[in-house]
Amino acid sequence: MQCVYLDYNGTSPIFPEVSREVLPYVTSCFGNPSSSHAHGVASKAAVDLARKRVAALIGCDEDEIVFTCSGTESDNWALLGALRQHASTAAAGDRSGAPHIVSSAIEHPAVLEQLRDLQRRGAADFTLVGVGPEGAVCAREVAEAVTERTVLVTLMHSNNEVGSLQPVAEVARLCRERGILCHTDAAQSLGKVKIDVRELGVDMLTIVGHKFGAPKGIAALYIRREVLADFPPFLLGGGQEGGKRAGTESTAMIVGLGKACQIALDEADATTAHMRKLRDLLLASLGRRLPPGTLSRVHGPSDVARRLPNTLSIAVDGIRAAPLLKRIGDRFAASAGAACHSKPADGSAAADCPKISAVLRAMGVPPSLAVGTIRLSVGRHTTADEVERGADILAAAIRQELSAAA
Amino acid sequence: MQCVYLDYNGTSPIFPEVSREVLPYVTSCFGNPSSSHAHGVASKAAVDLARKRVAALIGCDEDEIVFTCSGTESDNWALLGALRQHASTAAAGDRSGAPHIVSSAIEHPAVLEQLRDLQRRGAADFTLVGVGPEGAVCAREVAEAVTERTVLVTLMHSNNEVGSLQPVAEVARLCRERGILCHTDAAQSLGKVKIDVRELGVDMLTIVGHKFGAPKGIAALYIRREVLADFPPFLLGGGQEGGKRAGTESTAMIVGLGKACQIALDEADATTAHMRKLRDLLLASLGRRLPPGTLSRVHGPSDVARRLPNTLSIAVDGIRAAPLLKRIGDRFAASAGAACHSKPADGSAAADCPKISAVLRAMGVPPSLAVGTIRLSVGRHTTADEVERGADILAAAIRQELSAAA
Ligand SMILES: Cc1ncc(COP(=O)(O)O)c(C=O)c1O
Ligand SMILES: Cc1ncc(COP(=O)(O)O)c(C=O)c1O
Repeated sequence: MQCVYLDYNGTSPIFPEVSREVLPYVTSCFGNPSSSHAHGVASKAAVDLARKRVAALIGCDEDEIVFTCSGTESDNWALLGALRQHASTAAAGDRSGAPHIVSSAIEHPAVLEQLRDLQRRGAADFTLVGVGPEGAVCAREVAEAVTERTVLVTLMHSNNEVGSLQPVAEVARLCRERGILCHTDAAQSLGKVKIDVRELGVDMLTIVGHKFGAPKGIAALYIRREVLADFPPFLLGGGQEGGKRAGTESTAMIVGLGKACQIALDEADATTAHMRKLRDLLLASLGRRLPPGTLSRVHGPSDVARRLPNTLSIAVDGIRAAPLLKRIGDRFAASAGAACHSKPADGSAAADCPKISAVLRAMGVPPSLAVGTIRLSVGRHTTADEVERGADILAAAIRQELSAAA
Repeated sequence: MQCVYLDYNGTSPIFPEVSREVLPYVTSCFGNPSSSHAHGVASKAAVDLARKRVAALIGCDEDEIVFTCSGTESDNWALLGALRQHASTAAAGDRSGAPHIVSSAIEHPAVLEQLRDLQRRGAADFTLVGVGPEGAVCAREVAEAVTERTVLVTLMHSNNEVGSLQPVAEVARLCRERGILCHTDAAQSLGKVKIDVRELGVDMLTIVGHKFGAPKGIAALYIRREVLADFPPFLLGGGQEGGKRAGTESTAMIVGLGKACQIALDEADATTAHMRKLRDLLLASLGRRLPPGTLSRVHGPSDVARRLPNTLSIAVDGIRAAPLLKRIGDRFAASAGAACHSKPADGSAAADCPKISAVLRAMGVPPSLAVGTIRLSVGRHTTADEVERGADILAAAIRQELSAAA
């Protein structure tokens, strides 16, 4: 497919080195890691190696990594687990009022929808901290949102739409001081910026393979050792994953995540530099091809050190990004919103209802700019040539749209 | 690997036709099915086709299939979902006493451990119906176990250790009469015997890909349309799977499950016949190689029509199956218990603690025979030659063990 792919934040291509390691596990290596015969032993060794590699990427121990099947599962588990752990340790007297969770207005739906459901069911209350115009939470506001009843703060490491890095280390520090659990969704950060969980100081961290070269269908949750012991399992059954998440291991996918983590670690600096270079080239190329002022805004932190190196969310006044991208969708892949929730929960067609992204709304972006926002995201396999071709296609489509509207 | 593989109930090899269809999805086809560009559209089409194939295998509509990542997840969800649905519909007055679930003593830990946890947390009570000496539940006993508070009956379609088919249709009928939800775990039946969910009459059915040719890490839950509408989602987030299970779809794995289902449907009669023939050959070959009376017992229904066609659980008095199988584990793969719970939840080594299988215990098998029990299970790719080689290896090991003990 000759389609220019600038949607790495939606999902990344599977890296060829990853494919190569996965292949035997979707053909000949099929043993159940729990079996003690040769097939089982081989699969178990593969799972063990993968766990080592995941742990190495974020600087934790192997047994602090639990494999899950999606970022959504990791996020859901972090929330539900923290609540259940609280319920089981709180003395009867402490249970006055529902437990409380602090989060932000720009989290992924895997956090926000879970929070809303918990509130609907009366299982928890929550407070969402807002963001500034550049899409970043202020740690002080998190501190202010914490109450006596707060059991968990969950704050994403970086935002999927505008790439804003969040003050997670600061928030983790204040959580530790107050004895509150701290979770971060690092779905968009891994493979783009370095993360060391010990430095970061969080109790839990979500890892999502398909954002940095692994296949879709594999993820993990880091759970700090001290928290892990009492942390409630997510799936119950055969005792896999140290009893924390039962179910036969998805060997092929796990091997893929491991390899992707190894690559992310080995190439950390090179990847960040490569992404930044191509992201900046993309902005410059687009600018050159469009009348001055067409690109009304680049969303997210103006300080590039506070933004993901690969993310370019731009607003074009006077266009509607969703139908435009749909029209050129066989030659050019990017997002008008976050890919994984471009389709409403009721199953209706998404293209017809360009709901304004909750992230842009939280940032105070005016509706006219929000509907004209395109999220471009580059990655490891993006080339300068692809960027130039992409800029050609996108700029032409924007010009056409603008002149049709004029 | 020249290892004779007789552990299909533990996990099956990935069928070559399945591998072939999965391969592109772990190399070049990586689009996010929720994205509206070309990559996304291609992935969505693959997921749609797979869902059709899964539905066709069990005779339901596509939208009654929700993909999950393991049989454990499907089972856990069936239980938790039924309880939550009850909680949300029960009038406040109806909530006197915890809701009640009826199940059997021979279910997989994915059901039993979840039930135990629910009881520990005070969220539900349960009653486990026992089995007769041949490993089958009696429907009348299920009827007797049902109380005013029963909201769900969950009964496996066939048992993983001894292959006994259970009276699920009868149980589903009595559930329907009483307005109780009925779930069946068909992990071991699909790909071995035909199942039509409409005839069976259950509300939910667990499908596990890696038991019949798909890779590990993909499964599904059938939820009958009338139940589905109000059924609580398992994972919350981006609204995938009709809002019932959020998270980016595991495209490659889903494609694999679809293909495995298509094969299972196309070859249904041939596979059953092939399995039965080789299973019977295996028993005969072993018998010929061992002194008369060595095989003390074949567990499970004596009426072969009531037993899975591929399963041969045999007891040898005077041996310990677990260490014996471990010793020959590089040449011969079989199970001393169910593979997926051969490792205790606390992570300690399994080989040292041959815990008597709960299934055999429930059947009243004496401990001396239970520890000497070997579960052999053949499958689509088992050959007569492999069976003969397997019989050689196993018979020699048994003879050696018996003479060492003598
Ligand atoms: C009857 C039965 N149910 C459920 C499962 C669980 O499947 P998984 O380990 O893939 O979650 C198994 C697999 O061993 C099984 O045999
Ligand atoms: C920030 C963030 N969190 C979580 C997720 C959820 O990942 P998945 O859809 O794989 O469950 C995503 C993916 O879009 C994401 O961007």
